[in-house]
Amino acid sequence: MDARHAVLFEPVAIGPKTLPNRFYQVPHASGFGSAMPRTQAAFRGIKAEGGWGGVCVEYAPVSADADETPAIAADIWDKADAEALALAARAIHDHGALAGLELYHGGASSPNGGSRFPRLAPSQFASEQQWGGPAKEMTADDIGRLQREWVRAARQAADAGFDIVYVYGAHGYLMTQFLSTVTNRRTDGYGGSLANRGRFWLETMDAVRAEIGGQCAVATRIALHGDSGVPGAETLPGIEIDDMLALVRMADDMVDLWDVTVGSWPEDSGTSRYYPEGSQRRWTRRMREATAKPIVAVGRYTSPDLMAEVIRSGEVDLIGSARQAIADPFLPRKVAEGRLDEIRECTGSNLCILREEAFRHVGCVQNATAGEEFRRGWHPETFAPTTGPDRPVLVVGAGPAGMECAVVLAKRGFGAVHLVEAEPEIGGRLRWTRRLPTLGDWGRITDWRMIQLARQPCVTVITGRRLRAADVLDYGAELVVIATGSSWRTDGVQPGHPEPMPGADASLPHVLTPEQVCAGKRPPGRQVVVYDTDGYYVAPGIAELLAADGYEVTVVTTFAVLSPVSDETLEGEMLRAHVHRAGVRVSHATTITEIVPGQVRGHDRYGDAWSADCDAVVLVTQQASEDGLYLELAGDPPALEAAGIRAVHRVGDAVAPRLLSEVVFDGHRLAREIDSPDPATPLPFLRERTDLG
Amino acid sequence: MDARHAVLFEPVAIGPKTLPNRFYQVPHASGFGSAMPRTQAAFRGIKAEGGWGGVCVEYAPVSADADETPAIAADIWDKADAEALALAARAIHDHGALAGLELYHGGASSPNGGSRFPRLAPSQFASEQQWGGPAKEMTADDIGRLQREWVRAARQAADAGFDIVYVYGAHGYLMTQFLSTVTNRRTDGYGGSLANRGRFWLETMDAVRAEIGGQCAVATRIALHGDSGVPGAETLPGIEIDDMLALVRMADDMVDLWDVTVGSWPEDSGTSRYYPEGSQRRWTRRMREATAKPIVAVGRYTSPDLMAEVIRSGEVDLIGSARQAIADPFLPRKVAEGRLDEIRECTGSNLCILREEAFRHVGCVQNATAGEEFRRGWHPETFAPTTGPDRPVLVVGAGPAGMECAVVLAKRGFGAVHLVEAEPEIGGRLRWTRRLPTLGDWGRITDWRMIQLARQPCVTVITGRRLRAADVLDYGAELVVIATGSSWRTDGVQPGHPEPMPGADASLPHVLTPEQVCAGKRPPGRQVVVYDTDGYYVAPGIAELLAADGYEVTVVTTFAVLSPVSDETLEGEMLRAHVHRAGVRVSHATTITEIVPGQVRGHDRYGDAWSADCDAVVLVTQQASEDGLYLELAGDPPALEAAGIRAVHRVGDAVAPRLLSEVVFDGHRLAREIDSPDPATPLPFLRERTDLG
Repeated sequence: MDARHAVLFEPVAIGPKTLPNRFYQVPHASGFGSAMPRTQAAFRGIKAEGGWGGVCVEYAPVSADADETPAIAADIWDKADAEALALAARAIHDHGALAGLELYHGGASSPNGGSRFPRLAPSQFASEQQWGGPAKEMTADDIGRLQREWVRAARQAADAGFDIVYVYGAHGYLMTQFLSTVTNRRTDGYGGSLANRGRFWLETMDAVRAEIGGQCAVATRIALHGDSGVPGAETLPGIEIDDMLALVRMADDMVDLWDVTVGSWPEDSGTSRYYPEGSQRRWTRRMREATAKPIVAVGRYTSPDLMAEVIRSGEVDLIGSARQAIADPFLPRKVAEGRLDEIRECTGSNLCILREEAFRHVGCVQNATAGEEFRRGWHPETFAPTTGPDRPVLVVGAGPAGMECAVVLAKRGFGAVHLVEAEPEIGGRLRWTRRLPTLGDWGRITDWRMIQLARQPCVTVITGRRLRAADVLDYGAELVVIATGSSWRTDGVQPGHPEPMPGADASLPHVLTPEQVCAGKRPPGRQVVVYDTDGYYVAPGIAELLAADGYEVTVVTTFAVLSPVSDETLEGEMLRAHVHRAGVRVSHATTITEIVPGQVRGHDRYGDAWSADCDAVVLVTQQASEDGLYLELAGDPPALEAAGIRAVHRVGDAVAPRLLSEVVFDGHRLAREIDSPDPATPLPFLRERTDLG
Repeated sequence: MDARHAVLFEPVAIGPKTLPNRFYQVPHASGFGSAMPRTQAAFRGIKAEGGWGGVCVEYAPVSADADETPAIAADIWDKADAEALALAARAIHDHGALAGLELYHGGASSPNGGSRFPRLAPSQFASEQQWGGPAKEMTADDIGRLQREWVRAARQAADAGFDIVYVYGAHGYLMTQFLSTVTNRRTDGYGGSLANRGRFWLETMDAVRAEIGGQCAVATRIALHGDSGVPGAETLPGIEIDDMLALVRMADDMVDLWDVTVGSWPEDSGTSRYYPEGSQRRWTRRMREATAKPIVAVGRYTSPDLMAEVIRSGEVDLIGSARQAIADPFLPRKVAEGRLDEIRECTGSNLCILREEAFRHVGCVQNATAGEEFRRGWHPETFAPTTGPDRPVLVVGAGPAGMECAVVLAKRGFGAVHLVEAEPEIGGRLRWTRRLPTLGDWGRITDWRMIQLARQPCVTVITGRRLRAADVLDYGAELVVIATGSSWRTDGVQPGHPEPMPGADASLPHVLTPEQVCAGKRPPGRQVVVYDTDGYYVAPGIAELLAADGYEVTVVTTFAVLSPVSDETLEGEMLRAHVHRAGVRVSHATTITEIVPGQVRGHDRYGDAWSADCDAVVLVTQQASEDGLYLELAGDPPALEAAGIRAVHRVGDAVAPRLLSEVVFDGHRLAREIDSPDPATPLPFLRERTDLG
């Protein structure tokens, strides 16, 4: 270990417990909750195995009026829930870490559509997040009942083996709703003055401490006011930082660990597009003014040097991590063993959050094994040896899927893996994506794999060589993996419109694809329309790039908002504000069906005719797999046999263009399963089942 | 039984099975899938008990590449899934009905985010429904594999006890994607000619029939082209009705039951706002041209007379129902017993679909027990007698919650239930809601309860009497239920803005609430802004009402689309087109913060200043509970004791303004649980648990 990093491995006492080191996986959602207990246990256990000294499960609603359906949370409404969660505590303990559970109530933010209990809040206001009407203003009975539920849940968490029990007070949920003057308009002892607004939180902590204080560390998660200056970032109104610090002083005797977040969730989990590493420090460092107790704060830290510096500064005691602990569960061990160049750095894309929110199953663009520990039996650092190491493998295409596939094949013991790329450098679509404004950190996907490929003696990387089918047949490989990626349609084909769009032809000067723009093709004239039916980062990125070059840019999108997919990564509002500040205009809910000289034509949201003048159009309509090489090879079994090729597979966008997390997963999966009878079809995975009673 | 209806009770042979009558609950989603097997079984079993001769479970994905996460479907990927679903088959059989399972593949519409398999489609096009990139064009191997999965699933369904096994070909899913020239651009034997496009479907049916044909009825669900003329209704492009009928002729030998739908889901499950009862008939009656086999079709039929007429016409053999079977599982029995006035008629609000889609738990605005059969042990027709029938009950307020509460209290055997309403007629907010354009059928919520109340000798309904606290204390009741509802804020308070809006005061002539408009208050001038931060039916309804009166109306909404909640009821696009045709304009994503003479002011989606000229403003910002009476009574225990009142409860909007389905549920729940120790808090309910392995 580098001596600079030794400070990170000091034990830290928190109340009656001691963390073995300063690496702390803060509570974060996974989609597993208490509904998928074995998946949850394996997902958290791997972090303990990788060296994180404290590992928490996600938000745990204490009662049926904090029902998060359709989201999945670690409900701890009763003893059976606690028994399900106990599997995670045990898995964490198996590797010597402490286990934490974040007891939670969402107040007005909990939809309660599953349980059908009334939503609760300090005062009766409608939530901007939750349609269906305003919540019930909590009565004194409601307050007492919820506090009893919290205590009951704390007792059950302790009995289930958790070492650290939270009173969750951050991110705009019930505790924060009491603290904020915007959402708390009460005139009784729970509203008005700072002490009154804090009473619900303080009383709950006091009661929890009375129940389990001797046995568990009592943690609380709070939000300091963030005002990052990032346009579009929601902030939490109604609680000033100095007020919050005053409350910290009031509560300090009751707290064993302060878990400090900043502002709203999109700000606290800010992406690399808009927030640099450690962006929260300017607020979180103020915590030390108010407490000498242990503090944990996050900062999407990926650098051990910066982690050590943050600890040495004294501002916090623990390095909190959610996303980096997903990207590399073994970061602490790698630091301890000086294997710094093996650390998979989080890209800050928030695809983990997109997967958890949209698909109820966390995943990671850097770590394909995240969330797959139980059901597919995958481990991020160990790989089953192949049954046929002597078969030479050729991987064609060094994009995200091809790179990942080659790395995993090498780790599985294949003796010779050739990764051949047509372009002068590896990276596939990341070659240009990482050069779009604000997307630089996504390049870490390439960078980590480039280092891994270089470290594997069995791997040969060849760039600048475009293989045709005949070249592949002549190559001398026994296994071939085609990873030739995808490209943007040049003809305006778009969802619901299978025919090429009249006038759309990217061989013309005034019609462009995203790749062409990134490769330097520039539109004639001044006015450019970027037409987006894709809905994610490409259209806004191209628009911003061209605006910076002095073009007057309008994004015409079929969606009601620009880049709706960015809402799934918490970036939507920031992205829209960012693009607006760059001078880009947007036409919403509009479909283009024709390009004519000087104009695009189509229809608006009601189907009425619409047109706009412009000099050029960039088509961000949809991607098409580059599957010609695969189809040619796979369609000629005799030629393959004659060439000694036992199998041709394909991965990534060459199968179907997908999110980056999914193409990396696909490359990884094929490499893991290449010895199965039908590698094109993923092997069945273990599933959690409902007890049939 | 009325002799007119006898035809509905004739048995119908379908292949090797015989349905006991012509009432058939078609497959429809519930949110229970195979993940909540006991909930599913109880929900379906109650329909069999109520007399439906055929009862189906919902869509059942046959493989992991039809993964519907985050939606919940009746996955039948393997034997353990089939064992979970067998509980439903058994519950249906317990009452003599036949059980159906709808084997399904969504193709490009299946998100596959949970399983992470590539999405599949006949050709590589992006889906308008599913972001994340276009699907994989299925290879010949994929086609063969899926057909084997379908056969395997059919075998497991048969072994699990299902009598009717579907090959699902409707609603735009995989079979339809093959049939449509828009989504199928293949050049092999599965694309091109009609016979080729139908090949996947025909081959799959043939293979399923070969596996289970002797044992089970083979059903298929198809879509006939719908073009209802309702603006905004999606239609399914690429398959003309005559082509579909030609395919029916090709497939007819293999099919035991034709389940016929119309167009897309929003059209097929059209709401009462835009589609009358039986709207599908003009297409579905054409099926008889192509087949003599049994046909089932839906039509949101609520009238037994119309049902019998449809059967007698010969166009179909079975009355298909989804929504009416939710609203009244006992409809067939009530028809059989001539109790026609007890039938709870479906309102066609699609709140069942909203609940299933948004909250993963079906519910019903007419039938509060829907979905609650297992977990709360509720039966739609039987009620546990109260332990204290002699306590006189006073229900204050005859809106949806108060009416429902009074009905259930009466059915539980309370000897005297007084329902006292301040207004001249009962109905609460429905009094004016049902008079908004297109919302007339929602009045069935009132109508059914009015009849029930009149039939219960223990119930006294008093209208036109506004009770103050002193009146309640003097009333002579031992139990009091306050159901005083809610009203729209008159001061412009809106989500995120707790202070009244400057200039917003509905006592002024140019500022109005929805109730005021419905009561006849009309804005001065010509130009009216309807300001909507609610997002559902009120703002568009008021806008349309005023437009019909000749006003120039603009809805200013904080949402990116008008009435986003209507997307959850499948009405969004139709509602927006409808309002547009009525001449109403819309300003999207705009917040009003001030009303000044002749103008509203605020900011646009980027926070930039915005204003619009207008003569008047209708505030549809948020509702406030009318809880004054409750709080006054509940806050004075000595007065209650002196008056002999043992308890004061409240239900519905007086607790928190909610969706109509939820306030009816709330009134029902309190009546069921009024003898519990703490009736304000719903009793714990049974939950399905994950096997801990």
